[in-house]
Amino acid sequence: MDERVRRHAEILVEFSAEVERGDMVQIHAPKEAEDLVVALYEQLGEVGARPTTHWRLGPASRAYSLAMDAEDYVTKEHALAEMEETDVVFLIIGGGNPYETTDVPPSKSQAAGRANKPILEERLDKRWVITTHPTAAGAQEAEMSTAAYETLVYDAMDKDWQAQYEHQAQMVEILDDAEEVRIVSGEETDLTMSVAGMRGANDYGKQNMPAGEAFTSPVPDSVEGTVRFDKPLLRQGNEIVDAYLEFEGGEVVDFEAAKNEDVLEGILDTDEGARRLGELGIGMNRDIDRFTYNMLFDEKMGDTVHLAVGAAIEECVPGGMEFNDSAVHVDMIVDMSEDSYIEVDGDVVQRDGAFRFEE
Amino acid sequence: MDERVRRHAEILVEFSAEVERGDMVQIHAPKEAEDLVVALYEQLGEVGARPTTHWRLGPASRAYSLAMDAEDYVTKEHALAEMEETDVVFLIIGGGNPYETTDVPPSKSQAAGRANKPILEERLDKRWVITTHPTAAGAQEAEMSTAAYETLVYDAMDKDWQAQYEHQAQMVEILDDAEEVRIVSGEETDLTMSVAGMRGANDYGKQNMPAGEAFTSPVPDSVEGTVRFDKPLLRQGNEIVDAYLEFEGGEVVDFEAAKNEDVLEGILDTDEGARRLGELGIGMNRDIDRFTYNMLFDEKMGDTVHLAVGAAIEECVPGGMEFNDSAVHVDMIVDMSEDSYIEVDGDVVQRDGAFRFEE
Repeated sequence: MDERVRRHAEILVEFSAEVERGDMVQIHAPKEAEDLVVALYEQLGEVGARPTTHWRLGPASRAYSLAMDAEDYVTKEHALAEMEETDVVFLIIGGGNPYETTDVPPSKSQAAGRANKPILEERLDKRWVITTHPTAAGAQEAEMSTAAYETLVYDAMDKDWQAQYEHQAQMVEILDDAEEVRIVSGEETDLTMSVAGMRGANDYGKQNMPAGEAFTSPVPDSVEGTVRFDKPLLRQGNEIVDAYLEFEGGEVVDFEAAKNEDVLEGILDTDEGARRLGELGIGMNRDIDRFTYNMLFDEKMGDTVHLAVGAAIEECVPGGMEFNDSAVHVDMIVDMSEDSYIEVDGDVVQRDGAFRFEE
Repeated sequence: MDERVRRHAEILVEFSAEVERGDMVQIHAPKEAEDLVVALYEQLGEVGARPTTHWRLGPASRAYSLAMDAEDYVTKEHALAEMEETDVVFLIIGGGNPYETTDVPPSKSQAAGRANKPILEERLDKRWVITTHPTAAGAQEAEMSTAAYETLVYDAMDKDWQAQYEHQAQMVEILDDAEEVRIVSGEETDLTMSVAGMRGANDYGKQNMPAGEAFTSPVPDSVEGTVRFDKPLLRQGNEIVDAYLEFEGGEVVDFEAAKNEDVLEGILDTDEGARRLGELGIGMNRDIDRFTYNMLFDEKMGDTVHLAVGAAIEECVPGGMEFNDSAVHVDMIVDMSEDSYIEVDGDVVQRDGAFRFEE
């Protein structure tokens, strides 16, 4: 086994989830991540935790969804009972063909998502970590050789997370104190939003591995302006290209996309909250220096900002502030490397990808 | 996908487990059984049941066991909670290298077994089915081409189970009414046991697929004589060859094996019940016409008898009769095709593999 796989498992078990003796652990993994699952079992055995592994299998999900009636999507009571007794969840995403569920009707995916909501909410109360095992399919999506992709993935994860924490803390503090944030990029992106009263948060390797962003939630009805997303978004295997949103009073009042506009429309029509922003994230992991079309990585990349329509993030929204609730949370990315800046309360804090505090 | 895989899934869902709308379903499968899992999801989607899939991964179990301390094997509370809320369990065995856990110390396997007992007992109260997906590894174990092995497996499963039921019912009735059974084969096997008061049972495709045996439980202290098992038994990847047991007053008083005698000893030393017989089974599936070293198949083969040391079978032991309790249930096979007979209350019911009622 590649020693980097063992190191990855060690980071996940010891640092990210801080697994302890007797912890009940769930792993969700595709078959392509076999080596990582074996390495996790070895680590978990050493700690004395008790794992089970769920197989993520796209072709099975597809076959099931096509055969199923949307009204039969009730909550999986056995999966909910298992989650209630679980302490730690490792979600290994990517791995296989990401287009495997492309031909599932969105109505089925939405029904599945609604039925899954109680399990998701239960999971969010656990120690959970989302990560990626580098596979040939992941490399293909990134248009890289498998070996180069592996290097990118492992370099982005095996780093000094304490130093990364401190680097990001500078931006978190700015967001924490901020009243208004403005994102400007090129000719089509000029968005302002209030973050007054919201908390800045530091993503340094606990719930996402790799990590690397400072993030907060906008005040739902405060967002004004327009944004063009520079990077395609993969949504259930459907690539939404050149998405464009126009906000008034916090709501999307106009939208377009060069490709799969109907999929974008489906997202925005999920519920009321899906037309508002739930997250503003600022990528700060300089080891991720290219797009891989894996959102876990892309949104952490230095020189990017991401905005999510849909659900806000609990740790960013203090009691008493309005929480944007939604069944979806869909991240979209703006490239900030050129002709761009982030302004906080009138001061430019990042220009063309370089933070003020990096100078 | 091979149409026989779809048919296999259909048999499992419709006939074996009789899955209904809203049923919570667990599948346990190795990655080699991917096609069968996809086919099961399709069937379960049509029915409107709700599946989760656990990944059976030998190398992970091995790595875990080697790293784990035996005293840390506590019951997986999350798996138990899931099982309690489950209606149907499909266990897909075989598939990968069966020797994957050969180098796990027996003490670890025993500790894992004890910790798993509450989950196993819960599972036995559900609708559960054990089956096999034919893979290259399974074919290798059977010393067959993969294509020929597939034919053997599917022919043994896709048959008229009602007719098989009726065929077996003749032997079940004999066992049901029997007082004493004697098994004679070659020069070394001559075993008598009482089955008075025990029930005969018919294995016709509900819990094992393929099925094909009539079985009962002996009265625990009644077994007398000797038995040489003609076929090797694979126990956690260790092949026990030419096992020989001598019984007095129902207990094993002497034993030997040409290979892995210490593994046989470990089984017999598990607990008090492991030194007594829990099952007498008579193979009656004529579509299984050769050994494949997969117990699910071998024990169903016509011309064989199997005896299990360890736990008796609940449906065979009426209230008031002594139930042989044990943490193990290990089947071993006697070839009855030559120089052999089964005698019930003084009448020969099978000679050299041919049943009296087949003549």
